[in-house]
Amino acid sequence: MALSAQPFVDQNRQRLLDELFEFLRIPSVSTLPEHRGDIQRAADFVASGLKNVGLENVAILPTGGHPLVYADWLHAPGKPTVLCYGHYDVQPPDPLELWVTKPFEPTLRDGSIYARGSADDKGQMYIHLKAVEALRSLHGRPPVNLKFLIEGEEEVGGKSIAQFVPENKAKLAADVALVSDTAMYQPNMPTLCIGLRGLIYMEWEATGPARDLHSGLYGGAAPSAVFGLVELLGKAKNAGGVIQIPGLYDDVKEPAPAEVASWKRLPFDEKEYLAKEVGSTALTGEAGYSVFHRTWARPTFEVHGLAGGFTGAGAKTVIPAKATAKVSIRLVPDQNPDTVIRQVRDFVKANTQAGIQVEARVLSAAPATMVNPDHRAIRVAAEAFSEVFGQPTVFIRSGGSIPIVGDFARHLGIPTVMMGFGLPDDGLHSPNEKFCLDNYYKGILAVTHFFEKLAA
Amino acid sequence: MALSAQPFVDQNRQRLLDELFEFLRIPSVSTLPEHRGDIQRAADFVASGLKNVGLENVAILPTGGHPLVYADWLHAPGKPTVLCYGHYDVQPPDPLELWVTKPFEPTLRDGSIYARGSADDKGQMYIHLKAVEALRSLHGRPPVNLKFLIEGEEEVGGKSIAQFVPENKAKLAADVALVSDTAMYQPNMPTLCIGLRGLIYMEWEATGPARDLHSGLYGGAAPSAVFGLVELLGKAKNAGGVIQIPGLYDDVKEPAPAEVASWKRLPFDEKEYLAKEVGSTALTGEAGYSVFHRTWARPTFEVHGLAGGFTGAGAKTVIPAKATAKVSIRLVPDQNPDTVIRQVRDFVKANTQAGIQVEARVLSAAPATMVNPDHRAIRVAAEAFSEVFGQPTVFIRSGGSIPIVGDFARHLGIPTVMMGFGLPDDGLHSPNEKFCLDNYYKGILAVTHFFEKLAA
Repeated sequence: MALSAQPFVDQNRQRLLDELFEFLRIPSVSTLPEHRGDIQRAADFVASGLKNVGLENVAILPTGGHPLVYADWLHAPGKPTVLCYGHYDVQPPDPLELWVTKPFEPTLRDGSIYARGSADDKGQMYIHLKAVEALRSLHGRPPVNLKFLIEGEEEVGGKSIAQFVPENKAKLAADVALVSDTAMYQPNMPTLCIGLRGLIYMEWEATGPARDLHSGLYGGAAPSAVFGLVELLGKAKNAGGVIQIPGLYDDVKEPAPAEVASWKRLPFDEKEYLAKEVGSTALTGEAGYSVFHRTWARPTFEVHGLAGGFTGAGAKTVIPAKATAKVSIRLVPDQNPDTVIRQVRDFVKANTQAGIQVEARVLSAAPATMVNPDHRAIRVAAEAFSEVFGQPTVFIRSGGSIPIVGDFARHLGIPTVMMGFGLPDDGLHSPNEKFCLDNYYKGILAVTHFFEKLAA
Repeated sequence: MALSAQPFVDQNRQRLLDELFEFLRIPSVSTLPEHRGDIQRAADFVASGLKNVGLENVAILPTGGHPLVYADWLHAPGKPTVLCYGHYDVQPPDPLELWVTKPFEPTLRDGSIYARGSADDKGQMYIHLKAVEALRSLHGRPPVNLKFLIEGEEEVGGKSIAQFVPENKAKLAADVALVSDTAMYQPNMPTLCIGLRGLIYMEWEATGPARDLHSGLYGGAAPSAVFGLVELLGKAKNAGGVIQIPGLYDDVKEPAPAEVASWKRLPFDEKEYLAKEVGSTALTGEAGYSVFHRTWARPTFEVHGLAGGFTGAGAKTVIPAKATAKVSIRLVPDQNPDTVIRQVRDFVKANTQAGIQVEARVLSAAPATMVNPDHRAIRVAAEAFSEVFGQPTVFIRSGGSIPIVGDFARHLGIPTVMMGFGLPDDGLHSPNEKFCLDNYYKGILAVTHFFEKLAA
């Protein structure tokens, strides 16, 4: 079908790309203190962008952490209000040596934009801004009321926005939220995500001897913080992927048979997934569950890294005094983060070996979220998405976490349209992250079309 | 009793200290490539020192790694030949922030010399040089024939000297070796070490997915190199300290009842050892074995550190593609390193979870060593040591490894007198390593006295 915004996209292709490249060049890594200035630059870039496309009340709002950017346009009485969310912060780019081109020098290669944050989430959130510009160019004004709330802490737990939302319910009141921070199931297959796993991110810090000891002199009698932690972590999940923390599966709600049936209709080749996406010799995980089930609807326990002891070149025979592991647990409906944190701490207490103390600190915690696919905004979004890509929209879940979707549901009482334009092999959080150029342009068409249909 | 070298030490106290400080200022860290120049400077320092005290044929011998320093003096026909060994390299000083004074700025505090390498082994090996100087000052010449062989790779496995010794049997032929690289059982208690554990140092490198993956999208299905390694390492030893590698204890020779009985006579307070030396809340290790037994006569499995994944500030939700652990196994009589390496590799192969490959690389391997306390040189050393400190000499083992002692036994057929002047709380390999100043001076007296008695 003819899409109203097609001429706008066709006439502005290069400029739309140049602007995004400018955004991607800002190394707004939220987790590293040395990038604080870049975070500010990214917030400024977003604020200017919102102003330039005609949003009003543009404000960079200071927080305890990185600033939020807010803007609105509320001159469509009687029409729905859409709250657009995105994040301008990105993951650290390391290991740098594995990038083909530099992470903050965006490069077009084989039809994709290679850069840290290209898909997660700068490229996708910028689509929303450019859709507003397209609508102004087409109609002189947006057909719906709009609010934008863009954060800079998504990759570090989103603490500030999690505080901001419940404290600003009136300011943020809307009919539906729009988030583009997920992936399409496969190229050209319009996909709405209706479920997200929650996430508890922790640091487990082990303390053993008062100081590092010589493993020859003390080995056999002195406890090691590194081994104590390794032994504890190793007990938390078995080799078959089953978490061994008592009670952790108690509240897990199994997906409805209809949803499981719909997953079976999705094209999926486990061998190809293993070879092309994961790239190992075998998948891991719980026996008797499909890959969709394991990655979308089952909790996980992951160890992201372990610091402490000696890891340099060569040999050092030390019994380390301290060690810290980064640990996360993905949550599914209806697991309660507080309950799980308690279960984890009980497990740690009960299983830490003699001579070792382990403190399990929580860096962030958010529950899983589901949205109802029969909500009007979801149906309209599915139609708009389908019309742009010429294929039926499929409904999937994501194993990742977008805590804000849960916050919008809980505090504002609204569903979120998770209309994502990423692709499964975009390499989020990995070296050589990319974003499909065609999806950038089609994304602008799809969001424009969604807003038009929502106003109809 | 009157000791012949006492006036020499008394008259040269400050100079003897200044010279050692100069040596300790050289950061000859053998494991770090950036210290290659310092290693050379340390070898030069040793060579000059040997020349200055009248040794002949002084040579810095290039190797595949760090240079060996050789010297001899062979003009005492009919008298025994002593092969003096030491090492001029030191452990890395990290964690730097825990040092009270800088590791390579030696400082005298509370009667001890604080510096990396002060006890291990620069301070102790320098005693041998200064004993030769004392003998020349007293008698114009040493009473025994002397060979010196000083290495720069002791802290990185001693590969070059391990090759050099069997290839230079005639050059190194001697009646006894002298090594000062162990500790006295307690202050003022002359102690000869008659047993050393062996050491296998390994890197276990795990490979999982082809690239780092997002733990939200892939968690539950994709194997993690970090968790795969953690889980494997956790299975290698139980929380009670018992190694779970099949066959590993098969060849362990229990110490003779008489030796175990002598250990029971050593003053030892387990509570004080726990509180003052180890500094944790409980000891670890095999039930039913004493601390001496566990640290001297039982094999150990230690994990020194684990690199890979994310360990920076904050949160990164990554499933790591690679991870490497530093692992060591201490060996006791009569364990064969090759057999144990095979057992370890079989264990790794049998216990690595699906989707993960683990390569177990050997960085160094040396068996345990025992010397016969009834050998004349050992008896003479015990007498000399006792006469300097005014207390009977005790015979102990050490849980550490001095591979060269085994090499001297195997290739040269000679026993080694392990006359150590360190103290148990010297903090070898740890921040704030120290060496008792009084033991430095008394060490010069003791080695001088040993040479004199050996010639008698």
